[in-house]
Amino acid sequence: MNTSNTKAFGTKAADALLEEMTIARRDVLAKDVEIEILYCGVCHSDLHTARNDWGGSQYPAVPGHEIVGRVTKVGNEVTKLKVGDLAGVGCMVDSCHTCESCKQDLEQYCLNGFTGTYNGRDKHIGGHTYGGYSEKVVVDEHFVLKVPSNLNLAAVAPLLCAGITTWSPLRHWNVGKGTKVAVVGLGGLGHMAIKLAKGLGAEVTLFSRTPEKIQDAIDLGADSVIISTDDQQMKSVHGKYDLIIDTVPYVHDVNPYVATLNINGTLVLVGYLGGLEPILNTVPMIMGRKTVAGSVIGGIAETQEMLDFCGEHNIVSEVEIIKMQEINEAYERMLKSDVRYRFVIDMDSLKS
Amino acid sequence: MNTSNTKAFGTKAADALLEEMTIARRDVLAKDVEIEILYCGVCHSDLHTARNDWGGSQYPAVPGHEIVGRVTKVGNEVTKLKVGDLAGVGCMVDSCHTCESCKQDLEQYCLNGFTGTYNGRDKHIGGHTYGGYSEKVVVDEHFVLKVPSNLNLAAVAPLLCAGITTWSPLRHWNVGKGTKVAVVGLGGLGHMAIKLAKGLGAEVTLFSRTPEKIQDAIDLGADSVIISTDDQQMKSVHGKYDLIIDTVPYVHDVNPYVATLNINGTLVLVGYLGGLEPILNTVPMIMGRKTVAGSVIGGIAETQEMLDFCGEHNIVSEVEIIKMQEINEAYERMLKSDVRYRFVIDMDSLKS
Repeated sequence: MNTSNTKAFGTKAADALLEEMTIARRDVLAKDVEIEILYCGVCHSDLHTARNDWGGSQYPAVPGHEIVGRVTKVGNEVTKLKVGDLAGVGCMVDSCHTCESCKQDLEQYCLNGFTGTYNGRDKHIGGHTYGGYSEKVVVDEHFVLKVPSNLNLAAVAPLLCAGITTWSPLRHWNVGKGTKVAVVGLGGLGHMAIKLAKGLGAEVTLFSRTPEKIQDAIDLGADSVIISTDDQQMKSVHGKYDLIIDTVPYVHDVNPYVATLNINGTLVLVGYLGGLEPILNTVPMIMGRKTVAGSVIGGIAETQEMLDFCGEHNIVSEVEIIKMQEINEAYERMLKSDVRYRFVIDMDSLKS
Repeated sequence: MNTSNTKAFGTKAADALLEEMTIARRDVLAKDVEIEILYCGVCHSDLHTARNDWGGSQYPAVPGHEIVGRVTKVGNEVTKLKVGDLAGVGCMVDSCHTCESCKQDLEQYCLNGFTGTYNGRDKHIGGHTYGGYSEKVVVDEHFVLKVPSNLNLAAVAPLLCAGITTWSPLRHWNVGKGTKVAVVGLGGLGHMAIKLAKGLGAEVTLFSRTPEKIQDAIDLGADSVIISTDDQQMKSVHGKYDLIIDTVPYVHDVNPYVATLNINGTLVLVGYLGGLEPILNTVPMIMGRKTVAGSVIGGIAETQEMLDFCGEHNIVSEVEIIKMQEINEAYERMLKSDVRYRFVIDMDSLKS
């Protein structure tokens, strides 16, 4: 298979800094779209993969799965996009297309495992996939999204991961006008959850430990903020919410949030992969038919739906633009939660 | 308020045996139905309340919330039943009728707390309510069920608790033809879950630790049995079930069962009130949009629906009939799981 050398930014080991490197991209196949990457969002998963925090990282690692850019080439069977179109790529670049999940447009739950945009198995040229910290990317058109032209392109990038990760549970659990939604944590995911839930017509509350975030949350569209360390405030919302989107990425006690669910309410975890400690108390779950669930990103059709919705409702992420060469510093700032609310790399900087 | 002395069987203290005693029943009010109790099922909750296992038991305690009998008197505003009708009473005898849950026929989730058939607050004559281990009971018609006449009446009694407790989640999670349901544990609840899920058209598997229960489960209608201690068998059903009804009444590891849920699958706890230990792993929940939920009994309309369904499909509980005077021995046998699958008291024995 023909490939071309492509400038990228990645790391050769878990304990190394990211640096410029050259990777191979395949030439477009019949159903492929080649995209010049204009902006790439910086997700916590990027950092975890670069540093092998979850194990299983393959090197060199080139992160990045919040990709927006412009189509520069298409294979001869491509119908979805044409050269010059704006395009986006999220967390997936392939799946089996044949399992029950794929058949239901739930590629994120592909029973044979979806191919991650980075650190996945590259079916075409072997080795592993490289993400969006690069000049260009070549992706099967099924996994390429159309990007509304009326939005700030840099601020669209995080929609491809932070956006869809919160949009999917909001839609799956039927959030709309009259629904009472709470969001736990105000970071990349949390701020998108507020904007999207609000866009869908819900009444939205932020749970936060830090009073400093109250004004931010209100500015983002939240109707109210509950300081989760304040027992009186927590009691005041006992039994209130239909859906809680819990974006906290580390182990934390979900029991106080379950207590704020209404009858039939659901708390959906989107940020924390691990054991639920302290242990979950089943009493309020049984006595109120409450559920604790999980959800990961979203399907491709659903991602397109979200992008279209964002175009119509003028919703984008709050971003801080950085240069590619600033990524190592940005990771350090992310670890200190010093970002409002998503770093986005201006990929033009990689050319210099 | 006028009351009449009524023969009953109960206990005066957590460490005392049950014995014959006299309790007061109110005379029928305008919307009340008086029922001569013919059979009363024996639920684990009876034993827990008699012995104050959960705390909060009030004495004398007269258990029993799987009541069937015949209407002997009705208040002048009663329209639902008439003297001579078969009637049933389950776990609830009152609720607030005004909250959002009650308005949705979800009296079991009454936001002001439903009145338990026993050990609840008696709004009419003060003190606490007395259950079905008695000659008769007086209940507001809203909480009285009509009992199909074609069924074995003794075997109907357990439907009022064990039946509805499994029916409600089967219905709430839309079990029907083609649904793959698993039931954890083969006791009073488990055996009803199998019969009802099968009646609804589902493919039904029992999870059990004991190979001796295989034939029983098949006889009850299960399509297959998986021995949960056998890793190979557990692996063979990985990702299979749409709904798991977990009836186990003590702390146990639910993670192996979550692994057998299909994408979007739900494990619903109906038996165990307490902390989930070992801790719940969120990874399969997030990576497969799986949920862990709880559910308690069911609403009155839903209970009637279940009784009607059982009448149409000729479904009853498997019971062992005992005399009222054998209740203390029956409790000991229940603790050893030595019952297939529900004790039912022939209340005629109380007259002797």
